Amino acid sequence: MKDGKSLAEKVADDILAMITIDKKFLPGDKLPNENELSGELRISRTTLREAVRILVTHNVLEIRRGKGTYVKENRELTEDFGLKNLTDMKPDIKDLFEMRLIFEPQLAYYAAKRATDKELERILHYGKQEEALILKGEDRTEVEQAFHKSIAKATHNEFMNRLMPIIYQAIDKGVLLSEQNDEILQDTLHDHRMIMEFLLKRDAQGAETAMKLHIIHAMRGFGFFEE
Amino acid sequence: MKDGKSLAEKVADDILAMITIDKKFLPGDKLPNENELSGELRISRTTLREAVRILVTHNVLEIRRGKGTYVKENRELTEDFGLKNLTDMKPDIKDLFEMRLIFEPQLAYYAAKRATDKELERILHYGKQEEALILKGEDRTEVEQAFHKSIAKATHNEFMNRLMPIIYQAIDKGVLLSEQNDEILQDTLHDHRMIMEFLLKRDAQGAETAMKLHIIHAMRGFGFFEE
Repeated sequence: MKDGKSLAEKVADDILAMITIDKKFLPGDKLPNENELSGELRISRTTLREAVRILVTHNVLEIRRGKGTYVKENRELTEDFGLKNLTDMKPDIKDLFEMRLIFEPQLAYYAAKRATDKELERILHYGKQEEALILKGEDRTEVEQAFHKSIAKATHNEFMNRLMPIIYQAIDKGVLLSEQNDEILQDTLHDHRMIMEFLLKRDAQGAETAMKLHIIHAMRGFGFFEE
Repeated sequence: MKDGKSLAEKVADDILAMITIDKKFLPGDKLPNENELSGELRISRTTLREAVRILVTHNVLEIRRGKGTYVKENRELTEDFGLKNLTDMKPDIKDLFEMRLIFEPQLAYYAAKRATDKELERILHYGKQEEALILKGEDRTEVEQAFHKSIAKATHNEFMNRLMPIIYQAIDKGVLLSEQNDEILQDTLHDHRMIMEFLLKRDAQGAETAMKLHIIHAMRGFGFFEE
């Protein structure tokens, strides 16, 4: 969801929440008529019509000729709304980096506490391999992902371990590492070294903070700042 | 993943990582023979055999009679390992709460900053409704989820918004709110009030901290402490 939405988009959003969160309208339900619903939402009928059109396009509502507007019988909409789509969706790249910012420092924290020697070895292996690729100016997409996945694995939290590839898959590979100038590369080298050092020392807070810095560097590289 | 694993389970884990992270063995690949692989992993052949058996059970490896041990041709294993399974998996309840501990305070943080008035209204609506149910001693599972989902929606981060129901779905409803004594209920009432107050004041750090306390209270209620 972005800001700068039109009023109709906001209303569409609101109706969607009435279905998915409030369960006010269930799949198969008929929506109240235009007068009633636009009155309830305190919007014009034109805006309501536009919002309905948006939701029809998104397969949430359907208009049955001469009958009215219905919530589609679409299981995904209700209980598992979004479940199946998490991997298919093309989310905003900023949303994903925000997710990484929340998520990955904590992975580093738990990895520092829980990694077995073997897992630590694997993390360092990829960290060093990535360092070598950066210095040679070669593509490091695969190794970068292996580095972060090894950290996720070392948290010993199965849910985090499985969520990680989803986030990475959603970030388009091309986007992940493109647009990198020398400064960004230097930051990456430095950040990775710090992460590895803290992990080796089993310093959970250090590893967490170094990882946070690493993600912030990446976000700033894209021009993303906190709103 | 749990601690207290047998050696064979750890080795199975390690071989799985060689497939999913290291891509050392790809789907369809034949594993090195027992002598070679057990030597490389510095384990006995008996342990290796046990680890292979575990991975066969989990559909990762297959033994072809008279030919050797192969990595199964299973797309889920490689690129999107775990993707499809995130919703089906029955993860450790502690893993899930750890995930909530990472995730939900940040949701509250962003919601305090970004919620529209309407979204804030929805959050407060469910918060108050839940309060009433707690005081009446009635079931509040649905309303509890709606409360937390409304907060996720107000982050305006589509990825978080979609991840939220996955986490909640994985937490068995019965488990989520069972075993609650008076003390826990009092904590919940108090925590929810704080969360709502901070959100209303648009105090992001306050909302984050109150939510963190709320999840910690829930974890302690289950007897989960940091390792």
